[in-house]
Amino acid sequence: MNSAVDLPLGLADLAFAASGEALVRRTILPNGVRILSEQVPGARSATLGYWVAVGSRDETAEVAGSLGSTHFLEHLLFKGTRTRTALDIAVSFDSVGGEHNAMTAKEYTCYYAKVQDRDLPMAVEVIGDMLTSSVLDPTEFENERGVILEELSMAEDDPADAANERLFTAVLGDHPLGRPIGGKPETIRAATRDAVWSHYRANYRPRDLVVTAAGAVDHDVLVAGVQRALDAAGWDPDEQAAPVDRRPSAPVAIERGASVVTATRPIEQANLLIGCPGIVATDERRTTMSVLNSILGGGMSSRLFQEVREKRGLAYAVYSFSGSYSDAGVFGLFSACAPAKARQVAELMLSELHRLADGGVTADELRRAVGQLSGGAALALEDSDTRMSRLGRAEISLGEFSDLDESLRRLHLVTAGDVQQLARDLADRPVSISAVGGVDDDVFSGLVA
Amino acid sequence: MNSAVDLPLGLADLAFAASGEALVRRTILPNGVRILSEQVPGARSATLGYWVAVGSRDETAEVAGSLGSTHFLEHLLFKGTRTRTALDIAVSFDSVGGEHNAMTAKEYTCYYAKVQDRDLPMAVEVIGDMLTSSVLDPTEFENERGVILEELSMAEDDPADAANERLFTAVLGDHPLGRPIGGKPETIRAATRDAVWSHYRANYRPRDLVVTAAGAVDHDVLVAGVQRALDAAGWDPDEQAAPVDRRPSAPVAIERGASVVTATRPIEQANLLIGCPGIVATDERRTTMSVLNSILGGGMSSRLFQEVREKRGLAYAVYSFSGSYSDAGVFGLFSACAPAKARQVAELMLSELHRLADGGVTADELRRAVGQLSGGAALALEDSDTRMSRLGRAEISLGEFSDLDESLRRLHLVTAGDVQQLARDLADRPVSISAVGGVDDDVFSGLVA
Repeated sequence: MNSAVDLPLGLADLAFAASGEALVRRTILPNGVRILSEQVPGARSATLGYWVAVGSRDETAEVAGSLGSTHFLEHLLFKGTRTRTALDIAVSFDSVGGEHNAMTAKEYTCYYAKVQDRDLPMAVEVIGDMLTSSVLDPTEFENERGVILEELSMAEDDPADAANERLFTAVLGDHPLGRPIGGKPETIRAATRDAVWSHYRANYRPRDLVVTAAGAVDHDVLVAGVQRALDAAGWDPDEQAAPVDRRPSAPVAIERGASVVTATRPIEQANLLIGCPGIVATDERRTTMSVLNSILGGGMSSRLFQEVREKRGLAYAVYSFSGSYSDAGVFGLFSACAPAKARQVAELMLSELHRLADGGVTADELRRAVGQLSGGAALALEDSDTRMSRLGRAEISLGEFSDLDESLRRLHLVTAGDVQQLARDLADRPVSISAVGGVDDDVFSGLVA
Repeated sequence: MNSAVDLPLGLADLAFAASGEALVRRTILPNGVRILSEQVPGARSATLGYWVAVGSRDETAEVAGSLGSTHFLEHLLFKGTRTRTALDIAVSFDSVGGEHNAMTAKEYTCYYAKVQDRDLPMAVEVIGDMLTSSVLDPTEFENERGVILEELSMAEDDPADAANERLFTAVLGDHPLGRPIGGKPETIRAATRDAVWSHYRANYRPRDLVVTAAGAVDHDVLVAGVQRALDAAGWDPDEQAAPVDRRPSAPVAIERGASVVTATRPIEQANLLIGCPGIVATDERRTTMSVLNSILGGGMSSRLFQEVREKRGLAYAVYSFSGSYSDAGVFGLFSACAPAKARQVAELMLSELHRLADGGVTADELRRAVGQLSGGAALALEDSDTRMSRLGRAEISLGEFSDLDESLRRLHLVTAGDVQQLARDLADRPVSISAVGGVDDDVFSGLVA
């Protein structure tokens, strides 16, 4: 344990700073495992995450049975280790009332738990065991194939989810970020235990692993617990290895997939998404993007909400969003409305984006957006989930950690000109439309080039 | 303000007790307004709710345009008061980054906000204004009709939501609790401003109002703020009126609506609900019901999860639930699976209920459920939302307040015999099935009597 490197400020390769009321620490073990914690005084619970920076984008069609293997593996890690059955794992968390789940994303996979302080050592041990010592039992593998297929069916039956999957493919084309995170039914049917096992062995190594915890957590105890869990798995703590590099963060050129894609279904609404390539995760305009989102479609006073819902009563849900990844992103607008109004709503949403680009924002709107984002950030940090995720994103995606004070400082630097400039940039990008419901492609003809 | 009655323990008509780490206080103004708060030391934010104990069950088909009026009114209270436009209301909350919404339920309507401590006075004032001084502008009324119709369409397009609405009607038949909360498209189309206005005048009076707040809240400041908001609305603080009575809590006889109801749709899954009449909100077996739910379908180690998902891979989602109201309730089981497996899954779920009734539960299962519920309760109370809601339910539905210690004490008293006895009682009740997806009534023929 003394071999762990506890990086003081200024020596880390990440720009870590102590957060106002909380203490952030980061340790790298000689074998490359990274451990980050944020201790919150007075907290009685903690959220813990074990992260691996591989996601659906890392699968390749060239390796047979590889597509969908990230999601498949995520499910299988709950299905038993060399020393624990699937039921043992479930009982460990159920019997203390903790939350316990995992999330496959496009660029990472995270296994997490939220528990009372006294149960944190158990969570560190059990998730550590799942991550290092899963057996991928062949019978469990086949059972879980059925479960995952049902999960995909459930998402496909949710029209907003279905429209969202299609939007990403339409906007990002053949880029691996355009693929659905969870796989497609045909790739899950074709997935093989060998491919999933290879994925597991190749990507779940000490140098891939990032452990983050926030809330009632003592950093030294956490580090010792993680080391114990890895020792139990036979991972050599002293093997010398550098942490895996972060992904290159330069934006790549995107060749659009489709300008309009619709799935016609006999349902009540048209679920409508309009999107274009967005900004990458490390883009220095990311705070400006948050402000733009707040003004355009971030709340009840936002332009989209006012124009589409309040003034015209055309929709219940309407908002904008931004998804950012290492080398590409998607910026989008969502609404769900009567199919007969779909073209009108699409036109309104597009015209609001162009109005922002052409006319800019008012000082009132800017002040309100800064207030919304500052208040929202302060409220979100009351939850150790948010802090745990923030640490993981800092380490895996951003390469820097910003505490609340630093985030607020950046927020107050955003100008109306910055927002308009970003809106202009977005409005110039090629737009795609994805719709699921009682509409077809013709509804949107001529709307996007 | 001195006319307010601050009830000491033992004198309240509710059995209120100081909560371990938090301070609960309750005040009744002479005009019947009730104000409850729970101050949590160290909290930096607060959740505030204005409650009125009227919900969808209180509408009557006899009054033209009344059905759906509770939900309609909830929407309209955001659309402007004598001194604030809809945009003013939206801006008030958006500019501080708070959450701000409302919820229509079967037996109450709640307008709530979660804000930083410094913004609580604003929230008390603005929601107070919305609740007392809404104008129900006729133009806004027509616009909002469109919004609500889209909200209903969105719910109808969600197959699990659609199955759930139908289950309540199937299980509860003509009982007003069996009606959909938000109205039906035809009732929302038929709703009139006059009916909604009458509903507003008849049910949003001082004696109907309950205000609850939790987190960073000072009770005296809260009471003063509420009084100021009511004074501004011209509500007489000294008019003598008793708070409206709680609803009668004796269970009523239920005549079942249907044994099987299906909506056949060309989607991937069958969304499957099995239900029977449950227990009322004040039933002394409600803690036993929580334990039963945990064991039968409350987590990854539960019987339903193990039998349907883990052993057979038939579904991604499977769980049990209990909804309790003043004089009736619904107990149910949910899963979503391939249509071809729907009968098998329905049989499995029913057989698990009967196995619980026939064979009871093990000491291990009981211990695990108690652990899960205690841990879950402790974690939930970290959030001021949960505490705010707990106060509202205590005042409106239960007639007693239990702090965490008291809830845990009751939980530890539940025996395996209690759980089996309740399971037997439920298994003897008439069962209904509701399904939405690629199935029809015949799939379930003979399964329920």
